[in-house]
Amino acid sequence: MAHSDIDHLIQLLAKLPGLGPRSARRATLYLISRRESLLAPLSAAMAEAALNVKICGRCGNLDTVDPCSICQDITRDPSILCVVEDVSDLWALERSEAFKGQYHVLGGTLSALDGVGPDELNIEPPIGRVLGGGIDEVILALNATVDGQTTSHYLSERLSEGGVNITRLAHGVPVGGELDYLDDGTLSAALKSRRSLG
Amino acid sequence: MAHSDIDHLIQLLAKLPGLGPRSARRATLYLISRRESLLAPLSAAMAEAALNVKICGRCGNLDTVDPCSICQDITRDPSILCVVEDVSDLWALERSEAFKGQYHVLGGTLSALDGVGPDELNIEPPIGRVLGGGIDEVILALNATVDGQTTSHYLSERLSEGGVNITRLAHGVPVGGELDYLDDGTLSAALKSRRSLG
Repeated sequence: MAHSDIDHLIQLLAKLPGLGPRSARRATLYLISRRESLLAPLSAAMAEAALNVKICGRCGNLDTVDPCSICQDITRDPSILCVVEDVSDLWALERSEAFKGQYHVLGGTLSALDGVGPDELNIEPPIGRVLGGGIDEVILALNATVDGQTTSHYLSERLSEGGVNITRLAHGVPVGGELDYLDDGTLSAALKSRRSLG
Repeated sequence: MAHSDIDHLIQLLAKLPGLGPRSARRATLYLISRRESLLAPLSAAMAEAALNVKICGRCGNLDTVDPCSICQDITRDPSILCVVEDVSDLWALERSEAFKGQYHVLGGTLSALDGVGPDELNIEPPIGRVLGGGIDEVILALNATVDGQTTSHYLSERLSEGGVNITRLAHGVPVGGELDYLDDGTLSAALKSRRSLG
């Protein structure tokens, strides 16, 4: 049996999403054999993150400063607000470098099945932010799932009195995607929203 | 873009076997959202392991003491030596609780293709240990791969002068395995080594 220090590390690593007991053992051996180059730096990086990372009180993003660096960035357009489910969605949009407005992170979606109502989400602050004025467009960039669409619908109802332009992301063929592999829903959405080449 | 502290953690996690950039991002968000219950303990467990885990100078096992707790265990039979490729193999055998002798970890296998010769492995110490006397049986518990078998062959040649009993693990049908899913090599080995039920 491995010694308790090693066992303890394996047990904790096995709690990470995507790692089971076997891959946690493999990762532990890999870490121990790279003590200076990986194990010590990773431990330090985790301690740093545990100490420094905060949730932005304005938009819900994660950063080492509050308000986060996106909320503080005066070069970004404050008149467009993009509402996302999770921080990972915000990161994905930032990687695309296609959006230069502000964000709001809901922290999940409404879900009748899982008993998630508006009170469980960070959903009143963005509504207040939009109805408070100064925002021209709200992009509801929620996932194209049932719960994501329910949440979009709820938000667009609540925001309808604000007189702002409410949009959602386009559905269609992914860039580089092959028609043969697409589901019917995506194909019919892409067909309905076809664009003139002229 | 995520802040550099978070990016740094993602980059280090992505180096673990079994995690890519996407799952490292997911693991990072998971860790940050479980700061007290997982992120801080994991960081501490890694720091502990980096500080305390040693390679046993006698057998090559990993432990917080040197010689390791297996080498120090006087209830284990010192006359049987089990030779394995890696610490993960030693752990697997210990989980089976079927072996109560001593181990030696080679740290790999001979490999003509990868240019690994006897000098690159921890292979002279076990030979000296066996030829030094006091050992009755050497179990070559190497993987059933070409390189594992080459290494087994090399070791059995070198140990032949010592007058010890040299054995290898049995090949056969895995317990719970279905014949239909087994490769031909395993099936023919299982057939060749069939045992009388009498």
